[in-house]
Amino acid sequence: MALTLGELAERTGAQLQGDASVVIDAVCTLQDGRAGGISFLANPRYRKYLTDTRASAVILAPEHRVECPVSALVSANPYATYARVAALLSPEPVPEPGVHPSAVIGADCHIDAGVSIGPLCVIEDGVDIAHGVAIGPGCIIGRGVRIGEDTRLVANVTLCHDVQLGARCVLHPGAVIGSDGFGLANEAGHWLKVPQLGSVRIGNDVEVGANTSIDRGALEDTVISDGVKLDNQIQVAHNVQIGAHTAVAGCVGISGSAKIGAHCMLAGGVGVVGHLEIADGTVVTGMSMVTKSITERGVYSSGLAALPSDQWNKITARLKRLDEMARRLRALERRLDDEE
Amino acid sequence: MALTLGELAERTGAQLQGDASVVIDAVCTLQDGRAGGISFLANPRYRKYLTDTRASAVILAPEHRVECPVSALVSANPYATYARVAALLSPEPVPEPGVHPSAVIGADCHIDAGVSIGPLCVIEDGVDIAHGVAIGPGCIIGRGVRIGEDTRLVANVTLCHDVQLGARCVLHPGAVIGSDGFGLANEAGHWLKVPQLGSVRIGNDVEVGANTSIDRGALEDTVISDGVKLDNQIQVAHNVQIGAHTAVAGCVGISGSAKIGAHCMLAGGVGVVGHLEIADGTVVTGMSMVTKSITERGVYSSGLAALPSDQWNKITARLKRLDEMARRLRALERRLDDEE
Amino acid sequence: MALTLGELAERTGAQLQGDASVVIDAVCTLQDGRAGGISFLANPRYRKYLTDTRASAVILAPEHRVECPVSALVSANPYATYARVAALLSPEPVPEPGVHPSAVIGADCHIDAGVSIGPLCVIEDGVDIAHGVAIGPGCIIGRGVRIGEDTRLVANVTLCHDVQLGARCVLHPGAVIGSDGFGLANEAGHWLKVPQLGSVRIGNDVEVGANTSIDRGALEDTVISDGVKLDNQIQVAHNVQIGAHTAVAGCVGISGSAKIGAHCMLAGGVGVVGHLEIADGTVVTGMSMVTKSITERGVYSSGLAALPSDQWNKITARLKRLDEMARRLRALERRLDDEE
Repeated sequence: MALTLGELAERTGAQLQGDASVVIDAVCTLQDGRAGGISFLANPRYRKYLTDTRASAVILAPEHRVECPVSALVSANPYATYARVAALLSPEPVPEPGVHPSAVIGADCHIDAGVSIGPLCVIEDGVDIAHGVAIGPGCIIGRGVRIGEDTRLVANVTLCHDVQLGARCVLHPGAVIGSDGFGLANEAGHWLKVPQLGSVRIGNDVEVGANTSIDRGALEDTVISDGVKLDNQIQVAHNVQIGAHTAVAGCVGISGSAKIGAHCMLAGGVGVVGHLEIADGTVVTGMSMVTKSITERGVYSSGLAALPSDQWNKITARLKRLDEMARRLRALERRLDDEE
Repeated sequence: MALTLGELAERTGAQLQGDASVVIDAVCTLQDGRAGGISFLANPRYRKYLTDTRASAVILAPEHRVECPVSALVSANPYATYARVAALLSPEPVPEPGVHPSAVIGADCHIDAGVSIGPLCVIEDGVDIAHGVAIGPGCIIGRGVRIGEDTRLVANVTLCHDVQLGARCVLHPGAVIGSDGFGLANEAGHWLKVPQLGSVRIGNDVEVGANTSIDRGALEDTVISDGVKLDNQIQVAHNVQIGAHTAVAGCVGISGSAKIGAHCMLAGGVGVVGHLEIADGTVVTGMSMVTKSITERGVYSSGLAALPSDQWNKITARLKRLDEMARRLRALERRLDDEE
Repeated sequence: MALTLGELAERTGAQLQGDASVVIDAVCTLQDGRAGGISFLANPRYRKYLTDTRASAVILAPEHRVECPVSALVSANPYATYARVAALLSPEPVPEPGVHPSAVIGADCHIDAGVSIGPLCVIEDGVDIAHGVAIGPGCIIGRGVRIGEDTRLVANVTLCHDVQLGARCVLHPGAVIGSDGFGLANEAGHWLKVPQLGSVRIGNDVEVGANTSIDRGALEDTVISDGVKLDNQIQVAHNVQIGAHTAVAGCVGISGSAKIGAHCMLAGGVGVVGHLEIADGTVVTGMSMVTKSITERGVYSSGLAALPSDQWNKITARLKRLDEMARRLRALERRLDDEE
């Protein structure tokens, strides 16, 4: 789609600098800019590309406006403005409403006329799908599932029975919502399956990445609040609660009944132990393990940075004897105290 | 389903305390109990909710029976009794036997008359499916697969060719069994694929979580023994052997030819290096890495607990110089020895 | 398939030792060898099985030829020769060309006559599939996808729109290529989705494991070069570049815009932070986290080996006070300096 820079300014609320009539038809990078393209400057490390950009316009912060050699959209939050501009220029294609003849639809479903259901989907009995929902090819929607307006299941998504999705969610391929939690009772060394009788409730504006799984609750529901963003390959165990607008990066594992606050960020590979709480606004850095409740917002870590292996091996050899080292240090202090 | 407390006592072998005639129709939590509900007390931290519970009955251990304000099922293992009660009250719906007309069935299959095959499944040639098996929508069963009695594939499960599943297994959506192992021979810097000619043999009463993958063996089979429970997002590489009744939590990765004993527990995010053995009954705590064989049962760890990042960063800065610290400590000891 | 040892020598370039006419019909292990079987000796720990092997022939290195009690194929790289022999004896079954009637094919596709498309696949509009491609059951191929010659999608693989695959690739079940990257702009505490407008370009001879996901680029493409091998359960974020012939083991997570060199090896569970570069030929050992660019090839680590938990707990208790220990050590040194 092509829009003038003036139209983009108006629709995004950014301030126009320069030529309102320049026609923009795509987003591009600063370094590979081209006529008709609009780029953005959010990360200072790309500032070096600004003066030579061949983009027709750039989205940038007020402090960079004087350096900009072309027309600009000036915004206090250039990356957010970029996101809006990109969505205007490259809107997600909206599939035609209708049910593909190869889809298998159960009994007692309520499927709004404005819904698109792709080929080879299975919609089980008693499913309720609101206006504007788009279900891509190969999705499986279990009995009793409810899906809110304008939610999009890209392809090959599995929703188990009675799962509830809010409005405007996006679920990527391989996502599995509502699988049984890992509930096991040990009886004389054998594991007895504990029926998983809760469900999963997902709020509005939630995104779930590829091959991410969210288990249903054991008795009560697993709850993903509004605006939560989950990346790929994440495991969310039964009865977890994730607060609104929390973002979770790839390969994170969250154990059962953990309660993550709102506006948190969990970086890639983080592990969260079960039955604990994490305060609103907490940030956990990559590959850390949260083993206790975090009651005060802040940044938390236990990840280790890779070093050359010979150096690392020396450290770990010493680490194994750290307790002994501490005792030797104490002994030295005593000897010196005694001497003095 | 509704049963009297007396019937539940009889069917689970628990001891009845109080009114045998009270009708129970659902399980519930202690704190959100309601008339007709039965709750349980297994974790001592919930004991505080016992005296005020509104549940009609509670499953609990003998030491808590006097405190119980309502009728009770008394059991030495309340959680296991709860699992049995929940299964009685909320039985898994049994799908009607029969093959959905949209399923694609290959040649030379033996599918028992009591089998249910859901919509849009693919059953390739030469598959053998025993009585009582339920295959949910969108599953793919490769040629030559054999599935034992009463096993359930929830939905969207992929079994590659010649995989064998025992009886009463449950496989959750996204599980992939029998994918090629990561067998590569390096030849002048390029990787040559090593054909993966073994299969996967899974015993009875095994559960496999959502989006978990188990690779087929290179020459011999990957073997998952009876009663093993695998959570979501687990990677089991080729030729791994997992002993009976071992439980593996989410996000664990087990490298090729590792041999895990029986009755082990691997917590979330654990990694196991290849070609090693782990003794029966071993427990490995969260995010630890097993790098050598464990010959003695016990609890093993190498995970680190998250701390406030500024504190953690100071530690890791020191850690990098741990070898130097150890040498300085030794030097001090020598100086003191010399002085004395 | 059965071949004489002489034929195997000729086709693999290995040197024949012994009887050229012995007929070989399968590969086998050294310890479980049998008549008609050919085994190999690559890992020295299996050498003890050589003298008693019941295999009809063994593939081995020149230094082991004298010890071999049976006929042999002598090769400087026995494992690579084994890979070739196994592929000759157990060729991957080639499915019949043709489109299964249950597959749903879009408009404007170019599907070569020599292509096999299995049951219940969805091929969206404008897809281009070259000669010899085999697409197993239940795969979903988004609009505009291009797939090169002889590539094989085993089953249940999802390729999102406009993804490009080279020739001779193998993709295992559950693999998802081209899902949206995790692009989010924060605006007043809410996350705005940043449209992911790039795609994924995968070179020739690439293997992608079960339940692995590769996100599409934000603006430019995510690029997987020729000969890259990805194991199961891997997360490759948007705009990652992986250089030729790099092998990545299971459960690895690679963050956005990371640029991995050629001929690298990332072991299981490794995490790579975004926006960094890793030099060609780098090896990263298990469960390490790469937090900075690696400019010099070598072996890098930050993984920790599991110890008995009581021992580990003492170490971590000391570790928390490592900064204090370092300061006490410095204080001691000063005291001793002062004394002297």
